[in-house]
Amino acid sequence: MTDKPAPPPASEQHTPPAGQGQAMWGGRFAATPAQTMQLINASIDVDRRLWREDIAGSRAHAAMLGAQGVLSAQDVAAIHTGLDAIAAEIEAGTFPFSIELEDIHLNIEARLTERIGDAGKRLHTARSRNDQVATDFRLWVKQALGEAEAALAGLGTVLVDVAEAHADWIMPGFTHLQTAQPVTLGHHLMAYAQMTRRDRARLRAAITHLDECPLGAAALAGTPWPIDREATARALGFAGPTRNSMDSVGSRDFAMEALNTLAIATVHLSRLAEEIVMWTSPQFGFARLSDAWSTGSSIMPQKRNPDAAELIRAKAARIASSAQALMMTVKALPLTYAKDLQDDKALTFDAFDAFGLCVAALGGMVSTMSFDRARMRAAATLGYSTATDLADWLVRELGMPFREAHHVTGAIVKLAEGLGIAELCDLPLAQAQQIEPRLTADALAALSVEASVAARTSLGGTAPDQVRAEVQRWRTQQAQVAG
Amino acid sequence: MTDKPAPPPASEQHTPPAGQGQAMWGGRFAATPAQTMQLINASIDVDRRLWREDIAGSRAHAAMLGAQGVLSAQDVAAIHTGLDAIAAEIEAGTFPFSIELEDIHLNIEARLTERIGDAGKRLHTARSRNDQVATDFRLWVKQALGEAEAALAGLGTVLVDVAEAHADWIMPGFTHLQTAQPVTLGHHLMAYAQMTRRDRARLRAAITHLDECPLGAAALAGTPWPIDREATARALGFAGPTRNSMDSVGSRDFAMEALNTLAIATVHLSRLAEEIVMWTSPQFGFARLSDAWSTGSSIMPQKRNPDAAELIRAKAARIASSAQALMMTVKALPLTYAKDLQDDKALTFDAFDAFGLCVAALGGMVSTMSFDRARMRAAATLGYSTATDLADWLVRELGMPFREAHHVTGAIVKLAEGLGIAELCDLPLAQAQQIEPRLTADALAALSVEASVAARTSLGGTAPDQVRAEVQRWRTQQAQVAG
Amino acid sequence: MTDKPAPPPASEQHTPPAGQGQAMWGGRFAATPAQTMQLINASIDVDRRLWREDIAGSRAHAAMLGAQGVLSAQDVAAIHTGLDAIAAEIEAGTFPFSIELEDIHLNIEARLTERIGDAGKRLHTARSRNDQVATDFRLWVKQALGEAEAALAGLGTVLVDVAEAHADWIMPGFTHLQTAQPVTLGHHLMAYAQMTRRDRARLRAAITHLDECPLGAAALAGTPWPIDREATARALGFAGPTRNSMDSVGSRDFAMEALNTLAIATVHLSRLAEEIVMWTSPQFGFARLSDAWSTGSSIMPQKRNPDAAELIRAKAARIASSAQALMMTVKALPLTYAKDLQDDKALTFDAFDAFGLCVAALGGMVSTMSFDRARMRAAATLGYSTATDLADWLVRELGMPFREAHHVTGAIVKLAEGLGIAELCDLPLAQAQQIEPRLTADALAALSVEASVAARTSLGGTAPDQVRAEVQRWRTQQAQVAG
Amino acid sequence: MTDKPAPPPASEQHTPPAGQGQAMWGGRFAATPAQTMQLINASIDVDRRLWREDIAGSRAHAAMLGAQGVLSAQDVAAIHTGLDAIAAEIEAGTFPFSIELEDIHLNIEARLTERIGDAGKRLHTARSRNDQVATDFRLWVKQALGEAEAALAGLGTVLVDVAEAHADWIMPGFTHLQTAQPVTLGHHLMAYAQMTRRDRARLRAAITHLDECPLGAAALAGTPWPIDREATARALGFAGPTRNSMDSVGSRDFAMEALNTLAIATVHLSRLAEEIVMWTSPQFGFARLSDAWSTGSSIMPQKRNPDAAELIRAKAARIASSAQALMMTVKALPLTYAKDLQDDKALTFDAFDAFGLCVAALGGMVSTMSFDRARMRAAATLGYSTATDLADWLVRELGMPFREAHHVTGAIVKLAEGLGIAELCDLPLAQAQQIEPRLTADALAALSVEASVAARTSLGGTAPDQVRAEVQRWRTQQAQVAG
Repeated sequence: MTDKPAPPPASEQHTPPAGQGQAMWGGRFAATPAQTMQLINASIDVDRRLWREDIAGSRAHAAMLGAQGVLSAQDVAAIHTGLDAIAAEIEAGTFPFSIELEDIHLNIEARLTERIGDAGKRLHTARSRNDQVATDFRLWVKQALGEAEAALAGLGTVLVDVAEAHADWIMPGFTHLQTAQPVTLGHHLMAYAQMTRRDRARLRAAITHLDECPLGAAALAGTPWPIDREATARALGFAGPTRNSMDSVGSRDFAMEALNTLAIATVHLSRLAEEIVMWTSPQFGFARLSDAWSTGSSIMPQKRNPDAAELIRAKAARIASSAQALMMTVKALPLTYAKDLQDDKALTFDAFDAFGLCVAALGGMVSTMSFDRARMRAAATLGYSTATDLADWLVRELGMPFREAHHVTGAIVKLAEGLGIAELCDLPLAQAQQIEPRLTADALAALSVEASVAARTSLGGTAPDQVRAEVQRWRTQQAQVAG
Repeated sequence: MTDKPAPPPASEQHTPPAGQGQAMWGGRFAATPAQTMQLINASIDVDRRLWREDIAGSRAHAAMLGAQGVLSAQDVAAIHTGLDAIAAEIEAGTFPFSIELEDIHLNIEARLTERIGDAGKRLHTARSRNDQVATDFRLWVKQALGEAEAALAGLGTVLVDVAEAHADWIMPGFTHLQTAQPVTLGHHLMAYAQMTRRDRARLRAAITHLDECPLGAAALAGTPWPIDREATARALGFAGPTRNSMDSVGSRDFAMEALNTLAIATVHLSRLAEEIVMWTSPQFGFARLSDAWSTGSSIMPQKRNPDAAELIRAKAARIASSAQALMMTVKALPLTYAKDLQDDKALTFDAFDAFGLCVAALGGMVSTMSFDRARMRAAATLGYSTATDLADWLVRELGMPFREAHHVTGAIVKLAEGLGIAELCDLPLAQAQQIEPRLTADALAALSVEASVAARTSLGGTAPDQVRAEVQRWRTQQAQVAG
Repeated sequence: MTDKPAPPPASEQHTPPAGQGQAMWGGRFAATPAQTMQLINASIDVDRRLWREDIAGSRAHAAMLGAQGVLSAQDVAAIHTGLDAIAAEIEAGTFPFSIELEDIHLNIEARLTERIGDAGKRLHTARSRNDQVATDFRLWVKQALGEAEAALAGLGTVLVDVAEAHADWIMPGFTHLQTAQPVTLGHHLMAYAQMTRRDRARLRAAITHLDECPLGAAALAGTPWPIDREATARALGFAGPTRNSMDSVGSRDFAMEALNTLAIATVHLSRLAEEIVMWTSPQFGFARLSDAWSTGSSIMPQKRNPDAAELIRAKAARIASSAQALMMTVKALPLTYAKDLQDDKALTFDAFDAFGLCVAALGGMVSTMSFDRARMRAAATLGYSTATDLADWLVRELGMPFREAHHVTGAIVKLAEGLGIAELCDLPLAQAQQIEPRLTADALAALSVEASVAARTSLGGTAPDQVRAEVQRWRTQQAQVAG
Repeated sequence: MTDKPAPPPASEQHTPPAGQGQAMWGGRFAATPAQTMQLINASIDVDRRLWREDIAGSRAHAAMLGAQGVLSAQDVAAIHTGLDAIAAEIEAGTFPFSIELEDIHLNIEARLTERIGDAGKRLHTARSRNDQVATDFRLWVKQALGEAEAALAGLGTVLVDVAEAHADWIMPGFTHLQTAQPVTLGHHLMAYAQMTRRDRARLRAAITHLDECPLGAAALAGTPWPIDREATARALGFAGPTRNSMDSVGSRDFAMEALNTLAIATVHLSRLAEEIVMWTSPQFGFARLSDAWSTGSSIMPQKRNPDAAELIRAKAARIASSAQALMMTVKALPLTYAKDLQDDKALTFDAFDAFGLCVAALGGMVSTMSFDRARMRAAATLGYSTATDLADWLVRELGMPFREAHHVTGAIVKLAEGLGIAELCDLPLAQAQQIEPRLTADALAALSVEASVAARTSLGGTAPDQVRAEVQRWRTQQAQVAG
């Protein structure tokens, strides 16, 4: 009774076609071995996403074999024409994918031979599925890393824009989710912009680390054919060829690094998503999601569930675990290729898809959220959040040692609490002076959240001018990168 | 250039339809918010697998509401008829699934109302999607756990059968992958049978732990309607209703336990898969996979790649990581329901699908593998694997203290090594007596691998008679369970 | 410059003694091989915690060997006396632990022989370190599982007591961290009590699944000695002996299950810890930690950081990851014992230690927290949390179909919002009747949070009487279990 | 009975002192809250390893405050003198660490004030524990990453040296652990050298990504004091200051990246460890560990257990899981600092310690292993490993299409198998010609494993000359880096 959707989910990733799954579960071994073997072994439902890379790799390989005199010019031309036609078929949705042909490489090769005959069979000279899949997959991951970096850059722009617009909107700065000191919303959002900056650096580094072309490693030992690996590497846009054939077909650190890097970046997205969930809860009430980015209730029209933010948190778990799964798999493998590695693609595709959705959704939410300035400011005053400003004043103006200033401040906070006064700047001077006679009216006035925030002008501090300066700096650097 | 399969993979789990994914990646925020929101939010591609459970839950709920006088008998009858028709549509593949209706629950409810009008709208009385999905998902997991247990039972039978057939086939017993003592293949396989026994116990325990019905918890707080939760629990085959409505809609420990339990069971399958990969390697040469369970090479006809075994190892990583992902998600959630939990189903379905394939594939491999008795026996003699038998003799017959017997044995092994004699039972008695004069011809004869194995008659030991006794014991217990 | 604590942390778990670590890092291979080998190989710093279990195992083994006539009564007596003396030495802190002797087993055996001579050497007859460590570790895990279960029972009592005291304290029930419906604090806490109930069931199941004694499996193949495994199993409190010697020394599913079970239980603790962090934040203000369970600030005396709650969340990550680490290790291992398994103990000890602290800390926090009834009630009224009660009334009293009632309710909520009226029960009847003329004063009065909560009397619902009934049920069942 | 080591393991990381743990477990809540709170909260046992970094940070901070006129020259001098004295105490093991003072920061600050009075109290001006710990920990991780990179460089040198010495030692190249084509041991080891190259690049990238100094971020919002963050960053060897104070105290991506990077590197070490376990097993017999790097058996003197290699595999699981644990923790945290982050240090220290041991042990094993040239060569001939060479010849010399050549080759392999001829180069020409008449004696001669290997001269191929060329290239590049 368990699962079996009908109609069978045409190509549900990694799941047995309903009928066969049924048989296998129900009667346990009722599915024929051949069926079960095909179900566990075939990868075409997953790796068909590599078709562009596979065709690009074959084009480069054929051209190189032609230049090296291994293939005739005629063969090369036929191969290129055939691959063009196949690409067009796939684009048009008319390519006859076959699970019997296991994977994208065999599907395309078989189709090519169908179309152009013997020349198609000669394409595989000096090549093996092992270096072919390593090349295809690296190309895909490299492209995806670049796109992920571009997506994060877009999110960074959103964060910086929204930060600038709220550079002086005061909100509580939390430690331990307790009010610690007032900050500005702009400053808070710029913290996330900084994270995207580092995440982008990591994504770029991951590209650099994988930027070597394994094509030509053949099955695992290289080849006696007079190939030109520099040429194919260049043609495919790699910085150069890999330097060891066994490493080339057996290593997947590029995928592990890609997943780990995505995982860290998504951890950051998840933190902001966590804040969005809190900020939009009635207890905080700091922000309100736009209609497009919340789901409602017909019965409670004011209710706005932050579903997208919650799903981003879930995806962070999923991506981190996919990274873990790949490391768990590879750690036990002797050289070189083992079929265990086939799962690298499902894990990686799923992670990049999820990441793309997360970045887009977060950018969408942040760019369309509205904030409640009054509630944020009011929250910022809770808990005598400017007490450290008072302590700083005592140290700076009266030369009190730091720890002693803490105790005086504590006494004054207790006084305010006892008087039911919420903000230290509203304390009657006279009463405060009973604790520390040297206190001045100016000192107390400086304890408003506005004054507190404005005073924190140290580099990277929350003073609105600092925030705006960082926004400008960010834009200048972006312009330089782009220019 | 990255992914975009064409034709778009109809319902690739969790991945954006090609076109939109393209837009989103390429132009980053080119997809409309509505599209992105729908992509990240909708679950119908995944949770349609719950359709049987959803219909069963609705049937039970409607019948109970009828019995309690909340719905008229007419309404109940209409609902049942409507649900029957919907089930037929889904079975037939004609049900109009809609992504706009987000999930399986809304898809079915909308269709029901289309078919039977207002009675359909009344079905949701005293119910919420929160307790509905919790009920559906528990029903699915409960069923799947039972099927997983049955599948493991089948594998256990295969292991025991093959063990019996090889109860006295001698092979090396390894520690640290070094030859330690001779064992029998039957004994080795019975070790895995024992693991399936415990894994099945865990699966059954997981069923027991989840066997409470959350239906009636409503949104999160229970309901003022006069419902009968004992009745719906009974109708759906649960041992009883859950006892706290907030716990009912917000907890997913049943899924975490299911995944963790599958993970441990798959760790065991992976160990045997690891052994199959080794045993079928030319260096070991202990076993040969059947044609159906290996993939070959057109060029090297004798080559038999253990792809299915390798994929089982990869699935173990995947399932363990899915378990981890779910714990990583839930650990940060306040009560009650949060959308993060939506990912529980994709993780769980994927894990059970993978597990089913692994069990079937392993059963298929083990039941059709052939073993090379001579090579296994020869390997068992390597490394003077019966040295401990000699030490035991010295202790037992001569009363030598254990540690002293070790030293004498070491000296005799060195003697054999020096003489180039591979098996201790082939040592010339005279030479051995130069080290320990009390040695006898019988003592040396007892150092053959056959004698060594036959002597280990302690309960659970490797003596063929012990192995056969355990096989009988296993069968008797199975018969008792089944009878 | 990196680490090197001085004075060297006598036996920092798993870390190289400062000096040698220094050498190894600084000069990379400056540490002698022997030193590095010893550092990576020795386990005595970790496994000395098994000393009680090791001595118990040796006692049982010696007694059995005596009963079987393998050891003389004299030897057995000497061994028991010697082990007693060793236990006393360890208790007294005078036992000379030696890293050269690698592990607890060799340390104790060597000391025993020092004390009683040859009889000590004979103790190892028909035993190996492989079955010895498997036995010791199982004993430890079994005991620790029992203690963990008892600790959770204690936490359950705390939760139930605090729930009873707050059975009718109204607070918001959240979904998506949005106010959904009012619930009571007692009901909320009883949800966690339910989780402890299932976690305890899992812990007990884990004990049942491991309750077989591996002693007598010897190195891996059993033994030719006439041992009585039933006797040793009984003496050590196991339900019986294991049934396969290879499985006995090579399997660690009992530890995997223990860690997974702890992980799920700690996920639950982490959720409550997450709520405590939120509840005690100024934005929620629902609760206040006692002095003993919060850390403060000299400068902001009203600040109470929920450090212990935050650390519980961190431990949940740590324990889940330890479970993952063990599965990651075992999944790649052929039978039987491999040294990889040595890390099982460090992971397991760390997890149980962390779990013990988490349960104690959470129990401490919950039992001493104070709650702010007024703030919780006020929060419960936010967001028109009783709107579903109104919809239910429309369905029940007016026979409106469910979905239609939703739309009417939505209109009335909008009306209240427009009028600035926070609670639906405060709506002027006349104005509400413009939307639905059949509304009555009683209907509106039933929309207070108190009425809403009181009405949810379905089994497991939040009505205070239901909560109190569940508290009684809990106590009765506890008494039955204990009685 | 469970754990309680006696004598209590002085400072077992993260574990409760025996007595208290006992109480807590035994009586569940018998430990006083204060004790439990201290046990879960204090970090001094772990973070004392940061003492050098803490003192360095304080020195830089004090000097800067002096230069900015915030502290007097006298105070700065006193602070420096006091810190020197404290460093000396810690080095000498006489520093009075106190668990009441929670962490290394408070321990040192309290001691400083004890020694130099009020100046000590003034040191904390314009600083907070939040930016202090972030700075200390970054300094530590930066240093440790550099040391890890240097250690890997050392391992790379070992691999390259051993590779060169075995550049033409033939062994089987495996895919799926099946013999695929002959390779050389030198080539195989150079594959691992390539992995260390990329791992080192990742470690260096991780240093670059963290190379910003958070000191001056203060509690979370920056400070009103006129500090010079460029100066402290410079003094501490950072490339510059961080740019956002909230990000500075709340982010831990540098630690996540460090752990992820270590995890990937250790996955590579684990793969080689896996091969060592196999190579040294009697079935392979390719290699023999030196005495220093294996553990033996008194009874089986020829036995050499690869314990260190097995432990490396276990550490790979541990390090990957620590990375996972940190991501699992951080993903759920709103800004800025939360106590959950305290666990980052235990996880990180443990990972670097384990990594250091793994690199040292692997370097030790590889540099002292001996290889069995004859057994490796013999194994390389199994499975007609040069069949692809024959196919290549058919394509190249006879112009046969690739797939056709495969079929002819398959037929010839079958012929050899039927004749019981192990190597294709030993086939009688006449018989081979019955399958393909154009075959020549030269063609058959080229099918020896030596000829096969020598022919694979493509860039990165296994031909001994290629291997030697790569060794030279490696050395040249190392010299350039070092020069």
